[in-house]
Amino acid sequence: MNKIKKYIKEHEKKFLNELFQLIKIPSISAGSGHKQDLIKAAELWREILLNCGVDQSVILGTKGNPVVYGEKIINKDKQTILVYGHYDVMPVDPVDEWKSPPFEPEIRDNKIYARGADDDKGQAFIQAKAFEYLVKYNLLNCNVKFLIEGEEEIGSPSLEKFCSDNRELLKSDVILVSDTSMFAPEIPSITTGLRGLSYIEVEVKGPDVDLHSGAYGGGVPNPANILAKMIASLKDDNHVIQIPGFYDDVIKLDRNERVEINKAPFNVEEYKKAIGINDIEGEAGYTTIERVGIRPSLDVNGIWGGYTGEGAKTIIPSKATAKISMRLVPNQNHEKITALIKKHLFKIAPPSAKLNIKVLHGGQSYISPLDNKAYIAAGKAINKVFGKFPIPERSGGSIPIISTFEKVLGTKSILLGFGLESDAIHSPNENFPLDQFFKGIETVVWFYKYFCE
Amino acid sequence: MNKIKKYIKEHEKKFLNELFQLIKIPSISAGSGHKQDLIKAAELWREILLNCGVDQSVILGTKGNPVVYGEKIINKDKQTILVYGHYDVMPVDPVDEWKSPPFEPEIRDNKIYARGADDDKGQAFIQAKAFEYLVKYNLLNCNVKFLIEGEEEIGSPSLEKFCSDNRELLKSDVILVSDTSMFAPEIPSITTGLRGLSYIEVEVKGPDVDLHSGAYGGGVPNPANILAKMIASLKDDNHVIQIPGFYDDVIKLDRNERVEINKAPFNVEEYKKAIGINDIEGEAGYTTIERVGIRPSLDVNGIWGGYTGEGAKTIIPSKATAKISMRLVPNQNHEKITALIKKHLFKIAPPSAKLNIKVLHGGQSYISPLDNKAYIAAGKAINKVFGKFPIPERSGGSIPIISTFEKVLGTKSILLGFGLESDAIHSPNENFPLDQFFKGIETVVWFYKYFCE
Repeated sequence: MNKIKKYIKEHEKKFLNELFQLIKIPSISAGSGHKQDLIKAAELWREILLNCGVDQSVILGTKGNPVVYGEKIINKDKQTILVYGHYDVMPVDPVDEWKSPPFEPEIRDNKIYARGADDDKGQAFIQAKAFEYLVKYNLLNCNVKFLIEGEEEIGSPSLEKFCSDNRELLKSDVILVSDTSMFAPEIPSITTGLRGLSYIEVEVKGPDVDLHSGAYGGGVPNPANILAKMIASLKDDNHVIQIPGFYDDVIKLDRNERVEINKAPFNVEEYKKAIGINDIEGEAGYTTIERVGIRPSLDVNGIWGGYTGEGAKTIIPSKATAKISMRLVPNQNHEKITALIKKHLFKIAPPSAKLNIKVLHGGQSYISPLDNKAYIAAGKAINKVFGKFPIPERSGGSIPIISTFEKVLGTKSILLGFGLESDAIHSPNENFPLDQFFKGIETVVWFYKYFCE
Repeated sequence: MNKIKKYIKEHEKKFLNELFQLIKIPSISAGSGHKQDLIKAAELWREILLNCGVDQSVILGTKGNPVVYGEKIINKDKQTILVYGHYDVMPVDPVDEWKSPPFEPEIRDNKIYARGADDDKGQAFIQAKAFEYLVKYNLLNCNVKFLIEGEEEIGSPSLEKFCSDNRELLKSDVILVSDTSMFAPEIPSITTGLRGLSYIEVEVKGPDVDLHSGAYGGGVPNPANILAKMIASLKDDNHVIQIPGFYDDVIKLDRNERVEINKAPFNVEEYKKAIGINDIEGEAGYTTIERVGIRPSLDVNGIWGGYTGEGAKTIIPSKATAKISMRLVPNQNHEKITALIKKHLFKIAPPSAKLNIKVLHGGQSYISPLDNKAYIAAGKAINKVFGKFPIPERSGGSIPIISTFEKVLGTKSILLGFGLESDAIHSPNENFPLDQFFKGIETVVWFYKYFCE
């Protein structure tokens, strides 16, 4: 087992070269412009799995992007680990803010810079390389299945059906996922809770065409003004969400739980500096850690309408649109919340406006127990490599499929992620520190050992 | 004089052909992508004026786009008419809503469809052709000067200086402008009042880069939400503008004046149907005619921020921007109003946001007296061609240069416009009815006769 450090050292260049081949494929799942690239990425993953030592690997179709499945069954009586990852990535706009092209991976300051460097090509690759080592040195003491999908960044719309159609194939004792972050290399953490998500697109339509703002200004509905007013009314001055029923299912944490959560390292000045904001902002009565971890939130993700070019164009836009998403906490049902916001928006829209709402995305929240075998094994593995036991973390992000796995397959997941906050996933200049990449491989190897003992 | 009808009939094709050459030049003044086209359009106007019979024509530089000047001086003791028009046009987005390409003029249903067909290439061309006829048949009984500029659609930023630098050159008894609309061919009208304009662009900046909305949602300022809230707060539920001091200089019209204004033809159902809105909307206590004519207004002209592509991207945008303009009424000073809104926005912005405000455009409002010689001559000319005397109209639009002419040159303008509400100026499928184009030429010829008598 102790040879893993040496093995990584000897294969550094090879590992990076292989990962870069994967990163270079612009497998963006949002929109419909990258279908071929998504298939290319799936095919490359199949090859990667075969080269790492699975018995077989296949590309399985879904209604959307295909799923890559692979397995190595050493003994049907032994435990089975199902490794989950995704080969799709986020879009890259605003592309001019990237210091190097998003799909031409570059190493600067000991970090890999590229879209997908962390999320989730880099992190899923950790799983492949740890598995490769275990197979090569005959150290594997359990069965392993791989499930690499291509729609995570758009909410895994096809995976629930895929899981319920393939319950037997996907049967396992634990689902192992590297797609989250830890606080810092010196403060390792494991994500034990994920927020859910409800994501809609609201279009407000006014006049048939853009109108001259001089001739009509003051007399006709302006969809951009109306949309702004509707958005503004969704939260009060204390940042409390004003959709009736929104908080009905939120479970209030007791004092002790809140104290525990606030033990996570947090420095407000460093936080502000790191993301370049003048001040923090959020629901009154909660700390930043609570606001982004255990409280639901509502954000405009995008907004557009009317003239957005250079200079002045004196028009009243014909329509205005916003993408609005809500992060949800345990016990909030994303379908219920989506229905509530839709109903509310239709209620508050003025009679002069025509409203069109599309549901783009949804997922349940998730909580992982701290006393299960996988969490304990992961903690020991992290301690072995990072020198400290991890802090359990309630993360603000969503991996909707994690709660779907629990619902459909009845299996808990362990979120053994090696990203850092500074990795800028979903943003320009996404990166992944080489040290986290290599330590991640080492940690996963130890996880196998402790879990299968 | 009565030969004008025949002259138009015989030259219809030639006139249209010449006008189309002008329209085909995409001389968009907003942005900086059409500098060469603007110069081309200026050069073609110089040729047009020379061919129509001016003694001389020159292209004169300004800080921005050049001005085309031409003159025919028949006798220094006679009156002088200064014809004003503009060769620049509005942008064409959304370009996919045009039924024929915006710069390939096409005649359908006896209308010219193209950007600039009405505003202001078609209308300014009316002036050139009426002048051509008068020169050709030796009917000109006054001096004529032409001033065709290239920055009207962006607020004529260079023309005030040009006027004060060239007071003697531009000296005249009246400024004749075809750049407005009449109610309908059977209800001719003359614009006697124009609203002023203040146009700004507001950028709200939050984090340095787009952030993951899961990891940060609920804890950091979202510039799109903040911008929406700021915009929403600019008007109350009665559509009364909430900027302190905004209405201070608005002169309230007395009951009789309001009764007069409301005599203009207006049918709310037809109005709603014509522009495709579910309902009208505007300041409580005022009719639609008042809202768009004698009351100030505030509209978002464009808004954008964050992810605006297909599908769902879970980010908190780094910034959000809106173009906001206000139409102003007589006695409101656009510079004062611009200062008021800027101050107000900085006041209401939360401390978490960074604000950046650009002033894009501004212009004073204008009122033309009904008893002056030019108005009377225009009324007679319209009656001669359209069979009815015109109704005086307070228009909601702005031609900021008209008030500048009065301030700098001390000369009143007559707004002898032949557009119709249905011409969709500034919108996709801008058009100009051939009948209005030909009747316009005829009317201008009669205007010269009555004015110079």
